[in-house]
Amino acid sequence: MLAFDWTFESVLEFIGTFAFAISGIRLASAKQFDWFGAYVVGVATAIGGGTIRDVLLDVTPFWMTNSIYLLCSGFALLWVIVFGKYLIHMNNTFFYFDSIGLALFAVVGIEKTLSLGYEMWVAILMGTITGAAGGVIRDIFINEIPLIFRKEIYAMACVIGGIIYWLMTFVTEETVIIQLVTGISVVLIRLLSVKYKICLPTLKGDD
Amino acid sequence: MLAFDWTFESVLEFIGTFAFAISGIRLASAKQFDWFGAYVVGVATAIGGGTIRDVLLDVTPFWMTNSIYLLCSGFALLWVIVFGKYLIHMNNTFFYFDSIGLALFAVVGIEKTLSLGYEMWVAILMGTITGAAGGVIRDIFINEIPLIFRKEIYAMACVIGGIIYWLMTFVTEETVIIQLVTGISVVLIRLLSVKYKICLPTLKGDD
Amino acid sequence: MLAFDWTFESVLEFIGTFAFAISGIRLASAKQFDWFGAYVVGVATAIGGGTIRDVLLDVTPFWMTNSIYLLCSGFALLWVIVFGKYLIHMNNTFFYFDSIGLALFAVVGIEKTLSLGYEMWVAILMGTITGAAGGVIRDIFINEIPLIFRKEIYAMACVIGGIIYWLMTFVTEETVIIQLVTGISVVLIRLLSVKYKICLPTLKGDD
Repeated sequence: MLAFDWTFESVLEFIGTFAFAISGIRLASAKQFDWFGAYVVGVATAIGGGTIRDVLLDVTPFWMTNSIYLLCSGFALLWVIVFGKYLIHMNNTFFYFDSIGLALFAVVGIEKTLSLGYEMWVAILMGTITGAAGGVIRDIFINEIPLIFRKEIYAMACVIGGIIYWLMTFVTEETVIIQLVTGISVVLIRLLSVKYKICLPTLKGDD
Repeated sequence: MLAFDWTFESVLEFIGTFAFAISGIRLASAKQFDWFGAYVVGVATAIGGGTIRDVLLDVTPFWMTNSIYLLCSGFALLWVIVFGKYLIHMNNTFFYFDSIGLALFAVVGIEKTLSLGYEMWVAILMGTITGAAGGVIRDIFINEIPLIFRKEIYAMACVIGGIIYWLMTFVTEETVIIQLVTGISVVLIRLLSVKYKICLPTLKGDD
Repeated sequence: MLAFDWTFESVLEFIGTFAFAISGIRLASAKQFDWFGAYVVGVATAIGGGTIRDVLLDVTPFWMTNSIYLLCSGFALLWVIVFGKYLIHMNNTFFYFDSIGLALFAVVGIEKTLSLGYEMWVAILMGTITGAAGGVIRDIFINEIPLIFRKEIYAMACVIGGIIYWLMTFVTEETVIIQLVTGISVVLIRLLSVKYKICLPTLKGDD
């Protein structure tokens, strides 16, 4: 089934999936992957986190009931093939899209987990997995150490967003407000941490 | 339980599992894995794709109800240990066996998915995962970029085979014919693409 | 939910989880991971094997119903951050803890699988996965060839322990005795194989 309803959330989800897929395809193309390989890396980046979440929650992976996600990754591949050289000028745009995707995926992950009756800490974890695990799979596929393990506040933005979601449940019962505050928090944490180069401390090895 | 019935399909499945396991064990041995490591890589190559498929479809992984698959991988290990030096002269044979395995795994994946009530596009995807994902796990285990992401028509043979399966459902209702045409198509696509060095285009990185 | 009952088994499980997490965090710190990355690698080492087991058995992953495992990995991170430089003097202690963890995880994996009605060979396999798969995920995350594929008797200790468990079921019906004999066997096999540098043969590549 191919379903797409033009709600605000659907549009955000499409943008997020597209941005995640683009990030995977571009990293794959830097390693001379062919179209098929680049598509797989793009898809894995876009839907990998949600798939791990759904397998852990024991529900049917979300992309198996609606082909929009695989099509969206296909558009991303087409985009990179056609506009390849110009993509570098769109780095800022994709960075914003990626942050929006991260925020939305985190919120979606939290809500799905809560709706299945799990506790809040599981939901925060699943929100983080939904947002960040796709990038880990991407980096394993291109045989690199996962970026989010070494640099930048990325998954931590989902964790903090999840804690804000939890705190908001004590403030209001309006789900839309909780979602908006959480999502905007994730985007802001991500943008500010990149702007001001905020990082987590690094461990010193004893090897 | 150990079950083996001497049907044509069972024999093909045994050949495919054996060939896939051999491919994993040989690549592991090139990296000086010990017997245990080589066995694990062989098993993962042979049953990895079907396992991911079954986890996504939420059914018990096929090899957990019949020990034949693990035993078959054990035979493959024994084979490599005993005939190690001579294997290079059997490269052609293993290439044919591997193609037969690929075709059979794709057909099995498609049928299992359809029998669970999923749509055709999910079935084509699951057929491709059944055939090609084991090789991806193999390459991750030996710390290489997955071969099928950069070279050769491999997974794409399963995708095209899946589309042929779908088209055949409009032509006939005889499952055996659909299976045969699909399987032979996958084998032919694989053989011809290697013979004539047909590749997918490669993406040019922008870094 | 956070549950901890002060039984002998719970204490052993805590020690095992702690030791496994420490092993992941230390390897991550040798690669300059940040705190978040190190925590994820620690968690994956500690709960990865049991998670794969539970996904294959189609039950809720054990750590999603009790937050003790994630907290325990958090303690491990804190420990490495605070006592980083002195850890090298505790190598022996951690080696013993790790062996205890391996033994306990193997026994837990076997029992859980049998209690779900699977056959003995599946249980032995799941015991091995519970004990050894976390280390494989750890090594994939830090982009190294999995250690247990190339060196040392590690997973094989779980396999042999599993066979001893199976043989013991013919000798006695006292589960506690079977568990103890199995667990002690795994620890002994691990310790002796390291002390006397017993290895599996390595395959010679034909590349």
